Amino acid sequence: MILHRRFSSGAAFVLLVAALASVHGPEAREKDPLPSWNDGPTRSAIVGFVEKVTRKGSPDFVPPAERIATFDNDGTLWAEKPFYFQALFALERVKALAPQHPEWKEQEPFASVLRGDLPKVLAGGEKSLVELLMATHAGMSTEEFERIVKDWIATARHPTTKLLFTEMAYQPMIELLAYLRANGFKTFIVSGGGIEFMRPWTERVYGVPPEQVIGSSIKTAFQMKDGKPVLMRLAQVNFIDDKAGKPVGINEGIGRRPVAAFGNSDGDLEMLQWTAAGPGARFCLIVHHTDAKREWAYDRDSDVGRLDKALDAAKANGWTVVDMKNDWKRIYVGPK
Amino acid sequence: MILHRRFSSGAAFVLLVAALASVHGPEAREKDPLPSWNDGPTRSAIVGFVEKVTRKGSPDFVPPAERIATFDNDGTLWAEKPFYFQALFALERVKALAPQHPEWKEQEPFASVLRGDLPKVLAGGEKSLVELLMATHAGMSTEEFERIVKDWIATARHPTTKLLFTEMAYQPMIELLAYLRANGFKTFIVSGGGIEFMRPWTERVYGVPPEQVIGSSIKTAFQMKDGKPVLMRLAQVNFIDDKAGKPVGINEGIGRRPVAAFGNSDGDLEMLQWTAAGPGARFCLIVHHTDAKREWAYDRDSDVGRLDKALDAAKANGWTVVDMKNDWKRIYVGPK
Repeated sequence: MILHRRFSSGAAFVLLVAALASVHGPEAREKDPLPSWNDGPTRSAIVGFVEKVTRKGSPDFVPPAERIATFDNDGTLWAEKPFYFQALFALERVKALAPQHPEWKEQEPFASVLRGDLPKVLAGGEKSLVELLMATHAGMSTEEFERIVKDWIATARHPTTKLLFTEMAYQPMIELLAYLRANGFKTFIVSGGGIEFMRPWTERVYGVPPEQVIGSSIKTAFQMKDGKPVLMRLAQVNFIDDKAGKPVGINEGIGRRPVAAFGNSDGDLEMLQWTAAGPGARFCLIVHHTDAKREWAYDRDSDVGRLDKALDAAKANGWTVVDMKNDWKRIYVGPK
Repeated sequence: MILHRRFSSGAAFVLLVAALASVHGPEAREKDPLPSWNDGPTRSAIVGFVEKVTRKGSPDFVPPAERIATFDNDGTLWAEKPFYFQALFALERVKALAPQHPEWKEQEPFASVLRGDLPKVLAGGEKSLVELLMATHAGMSTEEFERIVKDWIATARHPTTKLLFTEMAYQPMIELLAYLRANGFKTFIVSGGGIEFMRPWTERVYGVPPEQVIGSSIKTAFQMKDGKPVLMRLAQVNFIDDKAGKPVGINEGIGRRPVAAFGNSDGDLEMLQWTAAGPGARFCLIVHHTDAKREWAYDRDSDVGRLDKALDAAKANGWTVVDMKNDWKRIYVGPK
């Protein structure tokens, strides 16, 4: 018999024990899925929610297909100071493109960017910022833009930490994303940032694939170029995925209401309200930047990532608020 | 020893054989995943593609994360004659809403709909159709619209087959969707039809969850109503997911280029071109309606689902063309 010829009784015994262990043996002690979270009410709230919605027979049980969790990106999954990293990308792109645009030396807001006069750039308000975004994010194909983002994100470093920007992703949030996925959740990013600025790296850094990223976008147009179809990026805003835009983006991109949502600023308030208003168990969490030493401390008075109304709403509604300083053992994922 | 006390040698032997069988035993003969597809070049092309992109070590291997397949809906996954089923829905909604709109008796295109004069409605062209769509699809919350669609799709019957519309989904295509998913593909719908007209039933009928449905849409707005957030459906077109819009919708909703795409009309041409133009193995398929007896036979001269340029492109590019009459053993999924 083939079995007898191929296996010694020793090998057969090993297989037998393996088979029995998987059925009857004591379960391997599970590793802590959230090692960078200190014990305390925040961690307990997260684990308590996940356990009650995943336990069969629990009155709060949520079927796997409905376990949708949405995460803001800037300030929630990675840092956002001194400015949104995408704004830093745009400023560097202006410098890189300047040789092809000699007229920029005389033309605002480009002239101020090239002189390094950031206060003047910011004084130009939204109009200036949109001009900078369009000049640096449009006028090429989607494939060309993806390559530009990939090259930048692989090499550019943060002005003060000197880390790669993706090294400034928050280790505790990466653990939280993985913990939710291990419990049957589908994790989505819902960010005011540009959708095509995030997609080239979110799978590698957060484990979130491109089809689960929702963000702001400019219009694209299908064109034939030398007999090859391309999608060209046009200098027109398509969608702003911020504030009241977030539930709109969630509805369009997911088509289900999340059962859990994670943000850090007033830009996330409507996403949290939309999530909280659904039936059954819900979980809303705000990352409060309270750690001036290891990261930054800011909330109601910050230009970037202002947290004011949403902090009041969290208190009024019993949402979970992360105290970064006390809840997180470690901040950044850091170098690999 | 616990093992000895709990298991007779007979039980241990059964487990041993089970363990070995799963590693070395002959594989259970697999059930045919495509029982409604006749043998022939179409079926062989499908199976050949799936085998070469999923076989490890194959020069055409595609990693699971990149196995994106996109399907048109009307005419590809379910029937579309005599008119797109969503148009039939809109006409029935006009009749249902008429008591609340006495002015419609005098007002086109509503008056013609209420008199049952379809040729006159169609003579009004796109302007009339958009008016009908807006009057029946906007002005309520997303939740209200979902309920209306669910009620209609559960009870409305096709004018000639008398089947429920979801019973007119194509059995061979449902098998194909499942076959692709069993081989690690993520299946998406990319339809000119309304995204919120499809999402309430695509998971049940096709196994495609809402977050994998891309379609045409009207704008929505986040509003607080009696202290509860709602998304109101506005009478403004947001996006038309047809022709050159399909690659745009794919890029926005998925962010990866499909490796396989399935359509049936000129509205799918750009999706097929976009899919075909990517690197590595690609699969493009067109469902050709050739079965006047069991379904409908139409192509170049049809108003609904015209297949002209895309049929030429299929021939020129070697895309697979389903001959519905000869390739399909069975057409509709039919009553459960």
